[in-house]
Amino acid sequence: MSVSVEKYPVTKTTPVPETPYLAVDIDVLKRNLAAMAVTAAERGLALRPHVKTHKSPEIAALQLEAGAVGITVATVSEAEVFAEAGFGDVFIAYPLWVDSSRGARLRALAERCVLLVGVDSAEGAQMLARNTSGGGPFSVLVEIDSGHHRTGVVPDQAGELAAAALAAGLDVRGVFTFPGHSYGPGLAATAAADEARALDEAVACLLAAGIRPEVVSGGSTPTAALSYGGTATELRPGVYVFNDAQQFEMGTCELSEVALTAVGTVVSRAPGRVVLDAGSKTLGADRPAWATGFGLLADYPQARVSALSEHHATVAWAGLSPPELGTSLRVVPNHACAAVNLADELFVVRAGAVIERWKVAARGANN
Amino acid sequence: MSVSVEKYPVTKTTPVPETPYLAVDIDVLKRNLAAMAVTAAERGLALRPHVKTHKSPEIAALQLEAGAVGITVATVSEAEVFAEAGFGDVFIAYPLWVDSSRGARLRALAERCVLLVGVDSAEGAQMLARNTSGGGPFSVLVEIDSGHHRTGVVPDQAGELAAAALAAGLDVRGVFTFPGHSYGPGLAATAAADEARALDEAVACLLAAGIRPEVVSGGSTPTAALSYGGTATELRPGVYVFNDAQQFEMGTCELSEVALTAVGTVVSRAPGRVVLDAGSKTLGADRPAWATGFGLLADYPQARVSALSEHHATVAWAGLSPPELGTSLRVVPNHACAAVNLADELFVVRAGAVIERWKVAARGANN
Repeated sequence: MSVSVEKYPVTKTTPVPETPYLAVDIDVLKRNLAAMAVTAAERGLALRPHVKTHKSPEIAALQLEAGAVGITVATVSEAEVFAEAGFGDVFIAYPLWVDSSRGARLRALAERCVLLVGVDSAEGAQMLARNTSGGGPFSVLVEIDSGHHRTGVVPDQAGELAAAALAAGLDVRGVFTFPGHSYGPGLAATAAADEARALDEAVACLLAAGIRPEVVSGGSTPTAALSYGGTATELRPGVYVFNDAQQFEMGTCELSEVALTAVGTVVSRAPGRVVLDAGSKTLGADRPAWATGFGLLADYPQARVSALSEHHATVAWAGLSPPELGTSLRVVPNHACAAVNLADELFVVRAGAVIERWKVAARGANN
Repeated sequence: MSVSVEKYPVTKTTPVPETPYLAVDIDVLKRNLAAMAVTAAERGLALRPHVKTHKSPEIAALQLEAGAVGITVATVSEAEVFAEAGFGDVFIAYPLWVDSSRGARLRALAERCVLLVGVDSAEGAQMLARNTSGGGPFSVLVEIDSGHHRTGVVPDQAGELAAAALAAGLDVRGVFTFPGHSYGPGLAATAAADEARALDEAVACLLAAGIRPEVVSGGSTPTAALSYGGTATELRPGVYVFNDAQQFEMGTCELSEVALTAVGTVVSRAPGRVVLDAGSKTLGADRPAWATGFGLLADYPQARVSALSEHHATVAWAGLSPPELGTSLRVVPNHACAAVNLADELFVVRAGAVIERWKVAARGANN
C-alpha cells in the first residue's frame, strides 16, 4: 500500500501558536502506536485503527508504519479524505443508509481503494446494493450488537441478515461489533466477554446459514488489551493514539500515556478557582456521569475542570497554590475525538517545543 | 455602518445536502430577530447580540438590519472575521490576556472598527495596555461577576479595577456582566435580579471612584425579556436567533420558535429505539444535568435523544410508532452555539426546502 501525505503539506517552521490550541506529544503518540501494535500481535489480531479519533493522514500513516493492515472510518466523507491521501484499505464501520447520491460516492470510492461497508438491516443492504448498481467492487460486514444497544442486530439474527445481503447481490465478508458498553470504570472486562460471546454466536449463525466469515472485527480502546480468545480476527481501537481523561479515569491509561492536550492560558483568577481560555469549543463538552469533571490538568492531577463554557474552563483549585494569570496549562480533554474535530490543525510537540503542524484533514466530515 | 457579506459568497442554487446537516428556517430566524429587537426597545436598551451563536456574517447583517447597534464576540479571531466582513462596531466580551502577538492583532483590529475589549484584572489591563503600545484606539469595559462565578470581579471591586485600567492608560467606557446562572429551569428571574443589582452596584462603585460609565451591558437569552430597570444600557443575548432544546426546556421559547435543527436520517431500528446519523459531531455533546436528553425531535416532542455517540443519536421511541429506516428527522440540539461551531455551512430553508447556504465563517475561531 502506497500512502502519500504530501497532499496535506506540513509547515516545517516552528510556529508559536496563540492559546487555545491542541498539542500532540509525538513521542508519547509513537509509544502508544507501538504498544497497541504489540497488543494486537500478542492476541493474533489484525489491527485496523479507527481514524475518526485523529482525522489526520499523518497519524494514519504512522499507524500503518506500526503494522496496521488498514483503517476504519465512520462516514463516507472521512473515507473520501483518506482515499484522496492514498490510503488503500478502508472500512466504513457504520450501517450506511445509501441513497442514490451516497451510492455514487461509494462507487467512486470503491474504484480507489479496497472498501468494506457495514450493514445492520436487510432494507439497508438492499438500498446499498440498488444504489451501487447491484453491489460493486466492495464488500460488507454485518453489524452485531454485543451489548452497547446502539446499532447492529442481535447475534442470532446475523445469519438471516447476511443471507439477505447476499440475496441483494452484496459480497458478505464477515461480521463486526463495537463493545461501547466498555466505557465506564470497571466495565471493560465484562464488555470484552460480551463481545467475544456475541462474535462467536454470530459466526456460528453465519456458518449455519452456509456463510463462512473471513473478517470477525471488534474492539475498543478500553477492551483492546483484554485477551478473550474466540473467533475475532481484527481489532479496531481509536482513542489509544492519544488517550484522554475518560481513558485515564477508566484505568485504561496513565497520565504519562496521554499524547493530546489543549494548551490554555489562565485569563482570570478568583479565590478557589482559575479560568482558562480553552472552553468547550476547544475541549468538547463530553462529560459522562462517572467522570470527575470536564477534563483534567496534565501537570496538576488533583485539579479538575469543574465548569465549562464555550471559551472558559473553570478549574477548581482549592487547597493548592493557584497558578498566576498568564500561565499556560495543559488540559486533558475528556474525549480526544471530540476535541480534535473542533480544530483545524494539531501542533506537534517534542519535549514541550512545537516542531510541526498537522492538518485535521477530515474535520467535520460527517456525511 | 456599511456591512458587506459579499466576501462570503452565497451559493444561490438549491443544493440537496446529504444528512446530517444543519438547517436554518429563515422565517423563524427573522421572527426571532424582530422579537428580540422589540424586547430591547421596550426596555430602552441598545441591542448588541453575541454572534458566537451563529458565526455567520449573513445573520449578523440581518441583526443590524433589525436594529442592533453592533456585535459582541468572544475571541480576537471572531472579531477579525467580522471586521473583515465589514462590521464596524465590535465588543470582545472576554477578559483577554494580551501578549505581544495578540496585542498586534488588537491594534490592527482597532484600525478597522470601533473596538471594545473586556478586562477583569489589573494585571490583564496592564498587559493589554503594554502590548498595544499604551492603550490604543479602543476602549475597555470592566467585567463584573453577577452570580455566575466564572470571570469578572465582584461589584464593589469595579471602581478599583476601573481606576487601575485608567492608570494603565486605557479608556474605560463602562462595565459588563453575563448572568450565566440563568441557565436552568426557574432560574432566570433570580439571575436577572442579581444582574441588575450587580450592575447598579458596579456603576455606583465607578461613580464613587470618579468614573462615569457610558456603557452598562448585560443580558442573556433566558433573562432578556425580564424587565428590571436599573442602570443597564445594553443587552447582549446570543442564542435567541436560533433557540435550542435548552431554551425550550427552560421555558424561554416554544418549539415553533426554534430556527436551527440538525437533519438526520434513520439508519437503524430496534425495539424501542431508532438511531439517526446526526451524532455528537453534528449536535454537540452539551447536556446539563437538568436536560431531559441530548436533544429533542422538532416534530415529535415526546421523543428524546437518549444516548449520543459521534455519529449516532439513539432516540428512545417507546409508546410511539417509530419512523421507518431512511426517514429524515429534525433534531433540536441542546446548545445551538456548539452545533453551529461543528459545521462549515448552514443550509437555509423556507417551508422545508433548501434555498441557500451560509458559511459559518468564524467556525473554530477560538484564539
